[in-house]
Amino acid sequence: MTRDQIQALLDEQTAAYRALQDSGLKLDLTRGKPSPAQLDLSNELLTLPGDDYTDAQGTDTRNYGGLNGLLELREIFAPIMQVPVEQVVAGDNASLAMMHDNLVFALFHGVPGSEQPWGVEESVKFVCPVPGYDRHFALLEEYGIEMVPVALNEDGPDMDAVREAVKDPAVKGMWLVPTYGNPTGAVVSEAVAAELAALDTAAPDFRIFWDNAYAVHHLTEEQTKTADILGLCVASGHPDRAVIFASTSKITFAGAGVSFMGSSADNIRWYLSHLGKRTIGPDKVNQLRHARYLGSTAGVHALMDRHREILAPKFEAVVRILRERLGEYGVASWTEPKGGYFVSLDVVDGTASRVIELTREAGVAMTPAGAAFPYGDDPRDRNIRIAPSYPSPEELTIAIDVLATSVLIAAAEQALG
Amino acid sequence: MTRDQIQALLDEQTAAYRALQDSGLKLDLTRGKPSPAQLDLSNELLTLPGDDYTDAQGTDTRNYGGLNGLLELREIFAPIMQVPVEQVVAGDNASLAMMHDNLVFALFHGVPGSEQPWGVEESVKFVCPVPGYDRHFALLEEYGIEMVPVALNEDGPDMDAVREAVKDPAVKGMWLVPTYGNPTGAVVSEAVAAELAALDTAAPDFRIFWDNAYAVHHLTEEQTKTADILGLCVASGHPDRAVIFASTSKITFAGAGVSFMGSSADNIRWYLSHLGKRTIGPDKVNQLRHARYLGSTAGVHALMDRHREILAPKFEAVVRILRERLGEYGVASWTEPKGGYFVSLDVVDGTASRVIELTREAGVAMTPAGAAFPYGDDPRDRNIRIAPSYPSPEELTIAIDVLATSVLIAAAEQALG
Repeated sequence: MTRDQIQALLDEQTAAYRALQDSGLKLDLTRGKPSPAQLDLSNELLTLPGDDYTDAQGTDTRNYGGLNGLLELREIFAPIMQVPVEQVVAGDNASLAMMHDNLVFALFHGVPGSEQPWGVEESVKFVCPVPGYDRHFALLEEYGIEMVPVALNEDGPDMDAVREAVKDPAVKGMWLVPTYGNPTGAVVSEAVAAELAALDTAAPDFRIFWDNAYAVHHLTEEQTKTADILGLCVASGHPDRAVIFASTSKITFAGAGVSFMGSSADNIRWYLSHLGKRTIGPDKVNQLRHARYLGSTAGVHALMDRHREILAPKFEAVVRILRERLGEYGVASWTEPKGGYFVSLDVVDGTASRVIELTREAGVAMTPAGAAFPYGDDPRDRNIRIAPSYPSPEELTIAIDVLATSVLIAAAEQALG
Repeated sequence: MTRDQIQALLDEQTAAYRALQDSGLKLDLTRGKPSPAQLDLSNELLTLPGDDYTDAQGTDTRNYGGLNGLLELREIFAPIMQVPVEQVVAGDNASLAMMHDNLVFALFHGVPGSEQPWGVEESVKFVCPVPGYDRHFALLEEYGIEMVPVALNEDGPDMDAVREAVKDPAVKGMWLVPTYGNPTGAVVSEAVAAELAALDTAAPDFRIFWDNAYAVHHLTEEQTKTADILGLCVASGHPDRAVIFASTSKITFAGAGVSFMGSSADNIRWYLSHLGKRTIGPDKVNQLRHARYLGSTAGVHALMDRHREILAPKFEAVVRILRERLGEYGVASWTEPKGGYFVSLDVVDGTASRVIELTREAGVAMTPAGAAFPYGDDPRDRNIRIAPSYPSPEELTIAIDVLATSVLIAAAEQALG
């Protein structure tokens, strides 16, 4: 495009932007929140468990105890996590809390295989595939764990970079969202998972925090099966390496679900021995409620089909609008995920912050630029996370229109210098 | 008593013991668990909240968010905690977890007023009134916090010992169960509370962990009002000193209740800033369930009256049997608490472990001897905690009979050398 053409584009888009701005929008695409229509799917939970508060083992779920969670609920999720049920712990409403507690216990006590508590080491580092999940990074920052970013490819982290990073004995672990990663939708391939399991790490107590938050959150008929990381680690002689997390936050109720952790028998024993100082047990009534409502592993999948009916059209709309509005200009690329909760948009280098500023000033709140990177620092200032789940289809269409307009304005501004 | 009389007593009690032993008992008095009859009082929770999942503020409780908890629930408990509602946080099912997290955050980050994180200090110590709550002590042990035991009198901790202890700048805090303490039932008087609030401590960031677990758990008409520790601390120029905990574990469901923390605005801000890294929010549906069921502060008190109807006769039975069986021998003393969950029994010095061994061998599980002391070490080996709440009245009568028999046997054995 010539300079004049770019100027014409800028004028045209600025006029469109002003019109959108004047319409008084107030839309929020910041977080991956389920919509009310999705939450409605599980309203049966609101009157459960009813009079029968006893689980299949005969436990009165109202009383204290049962640190590892209700067996009948763990049985439903063990196949999804690909972990033997006796190595699955069911917790309260946030798997993030289980990740937090794993880090805290490791810092204070070390994990099985540690020579000393992580917290007394000179430094502790985690490998962080980027772009990634901001709350993972915030946890590490909270506890002074240094982040080593590596690129996340379509089949998982850049293994050359990972191999290099784990030569440092201070590198004690890494994050991974193996299936439909936040925000790119990347799926860790079987081959990459096998390599991670077999990896020769300088730290003998290296851990993979395998946050399978979107294990069953498909957006297409192609239902990706997550690699069996625990089995691969066992086969490679690193049985304690993988710690697997999951939750029903995006299956039932985002704020009132249940969470899960699966790992080796040794890791589970270790975790429970420390967890037992913090609490006498999880909310077993809520676990019973979930077990009764979901019924079985098949019940979970059936419910996820209904989520897909609501979510897939929203993702299709995002991709369609981006293509229609931006396709011809070559100023952006975006993911077309087969599951999960996000579309990842890369704009012209150095303009992501400006795009977010423009959308905000037009009444559309987006996740801050850089959020998907450690310390909020996107070195190329180009990545934007789109969370299409919460707004209504109508609101979403407007919001993505605002976003596309902002992308074009910021690109034109930069081109004109 | 002469040696012969003691031998006769031992023979008589041993015969009684054998008879009890042969009856194949299997009773558990180890923990302060509510009985099924008590849990039944709150069965309405099992079908709440019903179709209306929106709180009074218009929040959809099913979704993410609301880190500090539902306002309408906090409003019910703020008067009980004597803390302004905006300084109360409502959490999930265990106040123990809130205490744990306060310790962890303090160790990693320090508290408002700290010069540095507690964890980088040479040593950190807590004053522990004894006998006290074993889970408090286990938390300190878990995190390497040294315990400084001080005697707990009927009106609170021995203040001479406390004054001496807090001259050490490593002493960063103390535990207190101010009302109907676990296990003695002691109530911290207004005068002692005022002195604690005004105390001149070497550590500028000294904290009182005021675990008001039994605030409304009266066993008599005399409804003790807990001292207003937050107000007293403010009045003494130590606004950040008190951190108050409470929960509904012994009001609604022990395993599926809600917990509370109240403190200064600064402490609450500090707590939430760290908590927000661990979780996006508590289970608000369960908080709504509780707000709807309890209705008001008066609703809580009314429910506690019904608990009292179930509990008071059990406590009366314990005291009656101990008096009938042990009163004439001068080998034991016990508390007659006006609230809470425990009777504290002191037997002949050096015999508590033997008593617990005897009860166990007769099929009655009791809290281990020494449990009410830091590191499980009762220097006089004389204290036994009785938890009368869970067994049925009939089972309780038998269990206390076994206990009394065991106390007499152990005392006679010792006297005979």
